[in-house]
Order: sequence, then C-alpha cells, then structure tokens
Amino acid sequence: MATDLEISRNAALRPLTSLAADMGIGDHLVEPYGRYAAKISLDAIDELADRPRARYVVVSSLTPTPLGEGKTTTTVGLGQGFAHLGQRAVIAIRQSSMGPTFGIKGGAAGGGYSQVVPMESVNLHLTGDLHAVTSAHNLLAAMLDNHLHKGNALDIDPFAITWRRVLDVNDRDLRQIVTGLGGRSDGLPRQTGFDITAASEVMAVLALARSLPDLRARLGRIVVAYDRGGAPVTAEQLRAAGAMCVQLREALKPNLMQTTEQTPVLVHCGPFGNIAHGNSSVVADLIGIRGGDYLITEAGFGADMGAERFCNIKCRVSGLVPDAAVVVATVRALKAHSGRHRVVAGRPLPEEMLAENPDDVYAGAANLRRQLANIRAHGITPVVAVNAFPSDFDSEKQAIVDIAAEEGARAAVSTHVAKGGKGAAELAEAVAEACAEPSEFRFLYPDELPLAEKIETVARRMYGADGIELSPQARRQLADYERCGFGRLPVCIAKTHLSLSADPSRKGAPTGWLLPVREVRASVGAGFIYPICGDMRTMPGLSSHPAAEHIDIDEAGQVVGLS
Amino acid sequence: MATDLEISRNAALRPLTSLAADMGIGDHLVEPYGRYAAKISLDAIDELADRPRARYVVVSSLTPTPLGEGKTTTTVGLGQGFAHLGQRAVIAIRQSSMGPTFGIKGGAAGGGYSQVVPMESVNLHLTGDLHAVTSAHNLLAAMLDNHLHKGNALDIDPFAITWRRVLDVNDRDLRQIVTGLGGRSDGLPRQTGFDITAASEVMAVLALARSLPDLRARLGRIVVAYDRGGAPVTAEQLRAAGAMCVQLREALKPNLMQTTEQTPVLVHCGPFGNIAHGNSSVVADLIGIRGGDYLITEAGFGADMGAERFCNIKCRVSGLVPDAAVVVATVRALKAHSGRHRVVAGRPLPEEMLAENPDDVYAGAANLRRQLANIRAHGITPVVAVNAFPSDFDSEKQAIVDIAAEEGARAAVSTHVAKGGKGAAELAEAVAEACAEPSEFRFLYPDELPLAEKIETVARRMYGADGIELSPQARRQLADYERCGFGRLPVCIAKTHLSLSADPSRKGAPTGWLLPVREVRASVGAGFIYPICGDMRTMPGLSSHPAAEHIDIDEAGQVVGLS
Repeated sequence: MATDLEISRNAALRPLTSLAADMGIGDHLVEPYGRYAAKISLDAIDELADRPRARYVVVSSLTPTPLGEGKTTTTVGLGQGFAHLGQRAVIAIRQSSMGPTFGIKGGAAGGGYSQVVPMESVNLHLTGDLHAVTSAHNLLAAMLDNHLHKGNALDIDPFAITWRRVLDVNDRDLRQIVTGLGGRSDGLPRQTGFDITAASEVMAVLALARSLPDLRARLGRIVVAYDRGGAPVTAEQLRAAGAMCVQLREALKPNLMQTTEQTPVLVHCGPFGNIAHGNSSVVADLIGIRGGDYLITEAGFGADMGAERFCNIKCRVSGLVPDAAVVVATVRALKAHSGRHRVVAGRPLPEEMLAENPDDVYAGAANLRRQLANIRAHGITPVVAVNAFPSDFDSEKQAIVDIAAEEGARAAVSTHVAKGGKGAAELAEAVAEACAEPSEFRFLYPDELPLAEKIETVARRMYGADGIELSPQARRQLADYERCGFGRLPVCIAKTHLSLSADPSRKGAPTGWLLPVREVRASVGAGFIYPICGDMRTMPGLSSHPAAEHIDIDEAGQVVGLS
Repeated sequence: MATDLEISRNAALRPLTSLAADMGIGDHLVEPYGRYAAKISLDAIDELADRPRARYVVVSSLTPTPLGEGKTTTTVGLGQGFAHLGQRAVIAIRQSSMGPTFGIKGGAAGGGYSQVVPMESVNLHLTGDLHAVTSAHNLLAAMLDNHLHKGNALDIDPFAITWRRVLDVNDRDLRQIVTGLGGRSDGLPRQTGFDITAASEVMAVLALARSLPDLRARLGRIVVAYDRGGAPVTAEQLRAAGAMCVQLREALKPNLMQTTEQTPVLVHCGPFGNIAHGNSSVVADLIGIRGGDYLITEAGFGADMGAERFCNIKCRVSGLVPDAAVVVATVRALKAHSGRHRVVAGRPLPEEMLAENPDDVYAGAANLRRQLANIRAHGITPVVAVNAFPSDFDSEKQAIVDIAAEEGARAAVSTHVAKGGKGAAELAEAVAEACAEPSEFRFLYPDELPLAEKIETVARRMYGADGIELSPQARRQLADYERCGFGRLPVCIAKTHLSLSADPSRKGAPTGWLLPVREVRASVGAGFIYPICGDMRTMPGLSSHPAAEHIDIDEAGQVVGLS
C-alpha cells in the first residue's frame, strides 16, 4: 500500500469554495489560507440557521491500547462512507499538534484512504491556530509575571500561581524550570514550567466558545492565581483578556479542508483528552450541523472519557444533541482487554497476538460492553465500528460483531483505511439506521449537583468504580471552588485513557475499586473542574530517535518522511 | 487626524491577484492567506527573470532617537510617491514582531497615510512566519537537549551550548532560566534562557536564504554548541535541519500586501538589527526587483548599521546592487545629536526641543554628514529624506536640506504620514534623479580579510572610531572561528543603534574612541560573525502598563487599541 504522504499527494482536490457552497456557505464567508485550507467566518452560524439540521454523530471508542484504535480514520472513513448512500456528510475533527508530529507518532489526520489532505498542511502549521493559542497563553503569563515585577497590586500569592507557559514542541527539559534569574530587571525567581500547547486552557476555551464575545468573556474568566486572601485572580483583572482575544480572533474560525474523497472536513482545535475535554470545537459543529445530511464529530479517547465530556461539557455549551454514537473497536484492543497480552507504544505487537484467536477477543468483551452502556447512559444509540486491520481474521472481527449483537447494538466491519469511503459504506448504513431511532439525550448529572457528587456519578456510572476517594487536599479544593462560585461547572476527570479505571495496567472492565482523586484543578475560563487521578503528563518528551530525524525536503522541495 | 487603525480600516483595497499581476506575477504563484495577504511562490524568481530590473533603493537613516525616525513610514511613503511620477514601485519591509506590538510601542508597519494594511494583519500573526521560526528554533533546542538526555553521542560540552530558545513575547522572566529540573526523566538541569523570536538565528537564516535548498543548507550549518574538543556541533549533526526546513517551507515565501494607496508591499522576515543584520528578506528583493520600476527596501537602524549590513551581508548573498540610498532625517533627531537635548523612550519630547531652533538642528549635523559618508563609502548615491512632523518649523527642515546640500546630496521634505504618496512625490523625484546617476557599488572589505580587520574596517570607516579594542576572550574567539573555517564570513557588529559609537549616550559623530569588543559570537547558518560591543538585550520586558492592556475587541468584533 502507498504511504499516507503518497496517497495525500495523489488525491484530487476540489476548490474549497465549491465544497463550501455544497454546505450552503457562500463565498463571502470563506477565507482561503493557502490553496487547500480556508477559514469559515462565524457569520455562517446565523446565515445557515434556516437550513435543515444534520443528523449528529459522535465517534468514540472502546478503551484504546497505547497505539490508538483508529478513531480519526474511522471518523473520516464514516464521513466518506455516506457518499455511497447518496448522503452528504460533513466531518469535524481536532487539529493535530506539531509536538507529537515531530516526536514519536507522526501526524494525526486519519490515514490511508481515509485521511484529511493535504497531510503536510494539516500536520504542520495549518492556519496557525495552535500558534495563536501559544501566543495568547504566553502573553498572559508575561503579563502575570510583569504584574509581580511591577509591585503586585493585586496581592497575588507567588506560591499560588497556577498559570504556566506553553509551547507546541515535545521538550521534557521545559517541564520544570526556574524563571526570573539574573538580577532586579530580570523578574522574580520562581519555579514553574511549560506544557504542550494542546494542554493550554486557552485551547479548551477556544474549543468551547460559541462566538467571539463568548470567547472574550471566557478568556476574562481564566483563573491564573490566587491572592493572599485565597480569592481567584483572573485574566480580566490582569487586563490581558482583550489582547488575548485579539490574538485569537482568526483562530476562532474553523478550518475547512477535505478528505481524500473530497468530503468536507472542519479541522478545529485540539484540547488535551485528559486534563481537558478532548473534543473539536463547538463553533465547527454549529456550522457543520447545517452543512449536510450528517455531521460526524470526533471525541478523544474511549467513550468513558471523550464521549462523556462530549455529552456533559460540549453539548451543554453548544445546545446540540447527538443522534447516534459510534464506538470504534479493534481486534487488537479487545485481545489486549482480555488481559492475556500487553501492547507497548513504539514496539511491534507481540507475535502471539497476531495468531487467529476469537476467544481472546471475546475475553476482552467486558470493556466494549461497558463503553456501549456508557453511550446508552446518555440516551444515545450506539453503533460498533470494527476498524479492520489487514492482520485481523474474519472469525475475530465476527466476534466483535457478536458481542455488539449481544448488547443489542448495531455493528459493521469497516475497511476505510484500505478502501476509503467504500469500505465504510456498511458502517454508514448502520449509523443511518441508528440515527433514525428515537433518541432521548440526557446529561449524566444536573448543574446543581455538588462537585464531589458529579465526580462520583461519572466514576460509578462511566468507569464502574465503587465510589471515589478524595485526598484531604482534593476535599479542601472542592470546597474552595464551591466557595469561589465554580460549583455549577461540569467535571472533566483527568485519568489515564488506557483503562476504565485510574490504573493504566487494569484492562477489561475493572470492578471493586475506588477512584482516587489526588487534587482538583479548575479551568474556569473553559468552564470545567478537573480532578487529577494519577500522573498526567502535560509535556511529552522526545524518544531516542524522534520522527523529526527522518523528516526533510527532497530535491524537488517536497516533504518526505512525514507519516 | 484619524488613528492608524481608522485609516487602515477605511483604505480601499485591491485584490492581491490584481496587484500581483501588475508585478508580472501570475495567479498560479499567488497563494491567498486570508483576504488581504498572499504568499508568493519562489518560482516567481525564475519566471520573472526576463522582466526588466527595477531601480533598487535602500532606505536607512541617521542615528535615530529611541523614538525612531519614521524609516518604515518613509519607505512606504516613498513607494507611494512614485505613483505620482507615473512610476510603479514595489516596497519590501520587515515583518513586525508581536512582542513589541503588545509591549511598549505598538505596531510597526508605517503610520498615518503611509502604512501597510490591514494593520491588524500585519501587526499580528500575518501568515505565521514568525511562529514558524519559533517552532523550528525550539524544535532544534528540544533535539539538542534530547541528545544530551539520550547519552550525548556527539560529546557536546554542556557548558559550551550556545543555542537558547525563543518566543515572540516580551517576557523578562524568561531571559535567564534553569531548565531540566525534576528528575531523571525530565532532562538535565542547566542554565539557559529565551530570546525574542526576531533575535533567532533561524530568522536571520530565513531572511538570507536565496532558495529552499539554500535554506536547507544554511539550517544545517547552524552551530548550536561545541564538543569537548572545541569542534562546532551543527543542526545537521543533530539531524534537525530537515525537519526545521519542513517547518519553514511556507515561511520562506514572501507575503504580498498593499499600502493605503494600493502600492504592492512584500512583507517578509524581521531579523534583529543589532545581533543580526536587520534587513527584510533576500527572496522578497529577488522577486520585487522584477516587479516594477523601483524596488524600495528598508534597512534597520542608522546607515552605519542597517545600510552597512545591507551592503556587506545582504547584497553579498543576493547579488543585487543598489542604485541609491535614502537617509531619513528628522528635526528632532538632529536636535538630539546637538547634545543639547535628551530624548527618552516612552516620554514626551522635552518642551524646549519643540521651540523653533534651526541652530540646534545645525549643531547635530555631524551625525547626518557621517551617515551620508557611510553611504558614499559603498559607492552609492545618498538622498536625504526629511521626515516632517507637524511640530517642525520650516526653518528647521530647511536646515536639514542645507546640511545635505553642503554634503552635495539631494534632499526633500516628505509629508507622507499626513498626506500619503502625494507628500512624498518630491522625495521620489530626488530618488529617481539619484538612481539615474552612474553608481559604482563596492563592498567595504573583501571576504578574505581576517575577521579582526573586518571589524576594524567597519569601526573606522562607518563609526568613526580610531580602532578596536579586543578583549582576551574576543581575541581567542576570533582565532577559534578562523580555525573552524568561519573566517571568510562578513561581520555584523552588535552595538547600540542610538550612537555611532558603542556608547548610547554619545550623540553626533563621536571621535577619539576605540570600539570595545567584549566577546564574539557566530551565526554560521545565517553566515556572519557578530562581535558584541555593549549590552545587547535580546528579550525585551513589559512596561508597567503594556500596550496589551488597551487592546481589545469592541461590540462589533473589531480590534480596538492597536496602534
């Protein structure tokens, strides 16, 4: 098979204004950025309001292995698949981050014949949205340190500063640093650090803003520190939010691109999937929902994480209600959930996992069952997408279909990576049927539930925990947040994505455990509280041989080595 | 008078493809980035090769006050002025940096009726070139630290690392930092820091590259450290240069914009004017030189700095030869050079400087005379542009014209800020006459002159020094660089731009002094050696009330407070 880069380069592309026109978006709303990406003006939200509303489908997965189970390729493939039913789909995905692209894993915009093209654009700067997030985030950091330097009129407690800095690069040496060395004119020494840009609260804010004024207001509400009396200090108080909003004005507009089969794709925002909600933007969905017959949107990690936040954080903001949810499953992930095999990032699969063994697949069923229940807990009809790999045996794929049937869920094997939309046509049909069923979407908890009970609700109903275990610090923090008026916010539980539990080594659907909450943090601008359950790495490092070593230009000036 | 932002917003703009067509640049070479900026493919250099070569004019100035003397507005105004002579001009300027935009001084793309529009674009992200420089620079930094972390196969001396990190923000707290704190998995603790992106060698490389392969080669030659044997370690050896080049591929293409009067402007690169050469890009000039009757390009700071580097660094690379040089002069700068007044950044001019006093202007003449001689030393015909301010008296402006006449140089009063191109028509006429004179451009020194003698040549002939004073460290470093094979590079002397000497308080044309060279650094990728003469601040700080505090969006979503 051709490489992703070759497939991308050979794809025939349509002019973006013509793609936009099919979505009902007039030329005056399309701002080209290079030849194959365009920003869509947010005026489209109002201008398209009279068009029929698309069916809204969220793509999630079972609990993935460290290799990922092809959620993005399935999202893209499913969107392409609808064309084979004579239906027009719009796809909404997150923007990938350059750090990982040059780090361990390469790009993240689908793969094979189900990818967003040109892959050199989507995996590099694209239209600069991540850079705008970096700039706005670091401007706030500079204004915060400058405030301390110039007399600290707000009486900020230097030991209660929560705002760090960000860069879109995998750089472990920036995780923990001391700034402000030198002399009097070089600032105040203190310990801090950098996160990767995708982990910035500004990214989460951008992804959750409904409009430019809403973005402005959310930026103002960002809490960067606490004063010596324990009161929160905001970006508004530092007079930084206006300038940040100006820096983010273009970044708020979703980016229109297309798949290898000319399906329109809105690529926008990429908030972290553990300490943030891991979904693409609200504004992309508000535009896409009027752009075709189906809007396929992606939610990061497993259904217990991405889909739960989709429902309880993103839909709360957008007001949109999903009609169906896809749960991506793979033979290798179910085998891993059997507990009989171990998958390690960056290493080939163990030999014995590649042998035909439908029993191992069945043995991992508990995870898939739980994730289907997680979808149903929100009143949404689930569909299982079996993302087929060339190494899978028919008996193994059938095992997944059988598990789905036992749960009363539709399922389809999808071969979109190898065959494009044609390979996802059956999946599209199953999704269309699911969407036609009556849906009764509901949030998992009401706004007014106390924060600790919100956490417990998610832990019990999504993760299968017996309850939660709050550290004294976490208990104090929850009380402080409720005192500060943040008690009505939803929760975004930062735990490993590699297990339903907080322990990445526990596969399947662990029972008889408590969710340990070490500490709790607040993304007040984005609008959620995030309890920390385990070590969350917010700045990746590079491997011994980073992907960057093999990325170059060739003699014709073309990019090589990007994957 | 209207604010810059109001003037910008009311300017009637032409479609960029139509502007490009006037320059002989076909649609296929124009990639729109938003509605009012476009990238020009470097294929234009070859495709336009048969068109007539424009007259090439570099705009420099006398030694400026800390307020700046309007070099960019004059560059823009002069370009606009040629239209009033029935001539077509193309303008090439540097891109401004967001750090200062949100810091002390506001934007930097001209002003009044001689500015590049839309000013919100040109002063913000534009097409993301600075962000690409930040990314490429910091990827190299991460790969360098990763190399140390993973065993240091190249035997890099951790105390001989010269590569820092960069961000486009004014953030004093990042000047001196310790990275790599934490534990074994978080890197190796060492002291380092951040510079502002414009100070990155990658920016200088981008500005000096002639083509994509040349960019690739220069990136590979960047020296980031020395090994324990004293040999240089390059980006190529770290296997970072290919990935950096991929990140910079789009950034290498110049950005086409326009002035308030629809004159085409190539906005590209913004290397620092002290530790780097402070000129816009070679590729912009290689395209612009075939784009009209005149190409007006800008060189940072006074003629002793920007114009000298234009001649001895930039023209060495581009192979282009200037036909005339404009030296911008102001009444206030000449009064300051009299030594009778003191101008302080961020404060209003002293009351007594605003009184009519042509004698004070005459008393500062020595600086202008020296700068005119500096232009002539390169065989170029100078023209004095008197950049008129509303507070100037006719007698004072006439004094500058008289000084120019005494030096045998043409001069014209220009009122482009208030009146646009019409106000610069006389200046354009003087420049056209100067271009018609026979020119015999020459470098100040040959490649093969030893580095110390190159420094001495510039110090004596440009700055009026009696010689140079090398510290023992500088002497050792020069010997090391020659041993490493860097001896044929030109020199870029990093000294204050506020005096012809290395002491910013010495105005006029100081005599009887030696240029003190404290240390010498090498930008091997960019291709110059830079001796450090004085304290060079490469990361600005914020003031008590940074410009950012007043920048915001209004209810209509428009930017306010940007100036």
